[in-house]
Amino acid sequence: MDINTANAIAVERMMAARPMLTGVATAREVIPGMRDNLLLHAGPPIDWARMPGPLRGAVVGAMLFEGLARSGDEAAGMAEQGEVDFAPCHEHAAVGPMAGVTSASMKVYVVENATPSGGNRAYSNLNEGYGKVLRYGAYSEEVLQRLRWMNDVLGPALAHTLAQSSGLDLRALIAEALHMGDEGHNRNKAGSLLYLKAIAPLIASAVRDNTVQAEVLRFVGDNALSVLNPVMAACKAMTDAAHGVEGSTIVTAMARNGADFGIRVSGLGERWFTAPAEVPVGLFFSGFTQADANPDIGDSAITETAGIGGFAMATAPAIVSFVGGTPKDALNATLEMYEITAAEHKHFSMPALDFRGTPTGIDIRKVVELGIAPRINTGIAHRQAGVGQVGAGLVRPPMAVFEQALVAYAERYSL
Amino acid sequence: MDINTANAIAVERMMAARPMLTGVATAREVIPGMRDNLLLHAGPPIDWARMPGPLRGAVVGAMLFEGLARSGDEAAGMAEQGEVDFAPCHEHAAVGPMAGVTSASMKVYVVENATPSGGNRAYSNLNEGYGKVLRYGAYSEEVLQRLRWMNDVLGPALAHTLAQSSGLDLRALIAEALHMGDEGHNRNKAGSLLYLKAIAPLIASAVRDNTVQAEVLRFVGDNALSVLNPVMAACKAMTDAAHGVEGSTIVTAMARNGADFGIRVSGLGERWFTAPAEVPVGLFFSGFTQADANPDIGDSAITETAGIGGFAMATAPAIVSFVGGTPKDALNATLEMYEITAAEHKHFSMPALDFRGTPTGIDIRKVVELGIAPRINTGIAHRQAGVGQVGAGLVRPPMAVFEQALVAYAERYSL
Repeated sequence: MDINTANAIAVERMMAARPMLTGVATAREVIPGMRDNLLLHAGPPIDWARMPGPLRGAVVGAMLFEGLARSGDEAAGMAEQGEVDFAPCHEHAAVGPMAGVTSASMKVYVVENATPSGGNRAYSNLNEGYGKVLRYGAYSEEVLQRLRWMNDVLGPALAHTLAQSSGLDLRALIAEALHMGDEGHNRNKAGSLLYLKAIAPLIASAVRDNTVQAEVLRFVGDNALSVLNPVMAACKAMTDAAHGVEGSTIVTAMARNGADFGIRVSGLGERWFTAPAEVPVGLFFSGFTQADANPDIGDSAITETAGIGGFAMATAPAIVSFVGGTPKDALNATLEMYEITAAEHKHFSMPALDFRGTPTGIDIRKVVELGIAPRINTGIAHRQAGVGQVGAGLVRPPMAVFEQALVAYAERYSL
Repeated sequence: MDINTANAIAVERMMAARPMLTGVATAREVIPGMRDNLLLHAGPPIDWARMPGPLRGAVVGAMLFEGLARSGDEAAGMAEQGEVDFAPCHEHAAVGPMAGVTSASMKVYVVENATPSGGNRAYSNLNEGYGKVLRYGAYSEEVLQRLRWMNDVLGPALAHTLAQSSGLDLRALIAEALHMGDEGHNRNKAGSLLYLKAIAPLIASAVRDNTVQAEVLRFVGDNALSVLNPVMAACKAMTDAAHGVEGSTIVTAMARNGADFGIRVSGLGERWFTAPAEVPVGLFFSGFTQADANPDIGDSAITETAGIGGFAMATAPAIVSFVGGTPKDALNATLEMYEITAAEHKHFSMPALDFRGTPTGIDIRKVVELGIAPRINTGIAHRQAGVGQVGAGLVRPPMAVFEQALVAYAERYSL
């Protein structure tokens, strides 16, 4: 089978996947291989010694949340001594924004690929909102209290709510949000409201306590990133469906741990190709500058891997007020991505481009031949633990990861 | 004072108005001059004999709803005999989509212009959703039952809910929706979800019955036109703020009753300038054609009068799948409207046009001089009562209304 045919199969599987949000459950009960002293994190594998500030902060916070340690110092000491294990979310069918740290007790979204040939599942933690949050490495009492409320109140409420539904079609939700000015990564305003719309009447039936109802509806409604985590899990379910096609050069994961950028390729198994992550360039919140920015971090580039996010910026011109540039730049970003992708998405279209499908399925051959790396929209974390988000902007993967993958492909397939 | 200065004042007042949704109340208790045998309708004044099918149907339905008659025939007979009075919504600080029929017992939204120099109020009925609805002239038992539920359950729930808020800033809501692919007239998807987001947590506190909560959240959330009526009242509050500026040639109302198109002008008092309404051209629902279309009807052109709707199509490219044409046509529609308006809106911007303000404040001089009539997005009603909506499309006012107004202006100001 030639490479183009293999790639067509992979991209077809990616687009045919139909991720349904079916529930919320405790990580240890649903995530394959999850256990009590395991902490999942964003990006490719990394040990404590090389973890950047925001990832270390999130690890410490998760250990405090789990009761594995009683203080930040104790947690850091235990992590340094190897008393907890680390693994990429991606190696456990999961994804998490920014630090992406997910521990055994945390509630996670469950997404199932309902396509007949599918059946694969993907998971993601719950979104905390803005400000001081674990995913940016903050672990103050305020952060831990919110996580406890999310686990004890929000999570069960969402679980009861989703149990009343036949599942929420996330592919349809993303498609609609792209017609409402979202690109699905940094801008999930419309998607989060569509999510609220779907669950609000069910919450009224599933949750009897009116105070809890109001809290949940306010928390979900006021957080324009509420749906980011389900969307990321949906993208993971779609890209996993495209993984493992013999001979395919399509990228099925792009992820960063704040030190390294890693990719996986459909026809190259479970291997990561990594290189040092770049520092995003963008707009900074008041009081912060480019010098405060941590290198690129998070599993959220799974959105670009699935054909949305930075690849769909043409449909989200309002995003430039958040990430920088002009609406024309946003349009050009999308147009450039057609150069390195294998298909135009069948289900994700952009009205502003005459309803053209989003550029989908990154081909490592095209990236290397043209010297065009994918574009990624991203939040920017402060390089120190606990400070939080300092801005948002754009970044590209290091070209080296695609070059390595192409060399490995040539070796694997004896070209 | 010269005309341009007068127009600048009028448009400045229009843009400075800050319409707040403050409540839901019974029409007879809040609408100035409302009384039990008065029926308000869309557009300029019209008597029963000249009313088109959909308006007659809505009149009959409102009479049945009010208990003024026991059958459609009885209601029609009474209307013909002059046993009920008719007046334009616009003459009672109100607006209503399509037929716009509002009767004394109906619940209406209350919108207040919170600008210090403002204080004016505007009103609009509640949106019924899609399908067989009074505003398209349907008055079957199903239609009346929904109206009763809206009056007895939805209206009081919204009233209790809004009483818990400090008012909902509709100008801010419209501004945000324009960044999410709405144009605010035919496409109010994002705005309706923003409305849901604002009221959902309050409903949880204001309404104790979980079944009612769920019904209200589902009704508001599933109707992508939920916010149309508050938006129209907001536009009415804004355009009324611009009305009555001596010497101004700015249009402050455009409205249609299904037979005539009428406008009012800021410097020309309460007088209507009317001419036969055009038939909208657009896309038709399955089974219907252009031949089924009633001439243009409804007060919803108040949105274009205030600088959104057809004037903001450039920000809503997805709307072309509903009204016809291409995204390029939508862009051109907005660009053309800059030719006949006095200002670019200070608060309503369009990301796709580099955040340019929407064309705002129609100047009758420019319309007549350039021969460019305003563009209006609109739903299309079947010409017979009771059939309902048959499509959506675009329409322009007859040029004659602007010519008449300009002649009246020359007489009034002795030019």
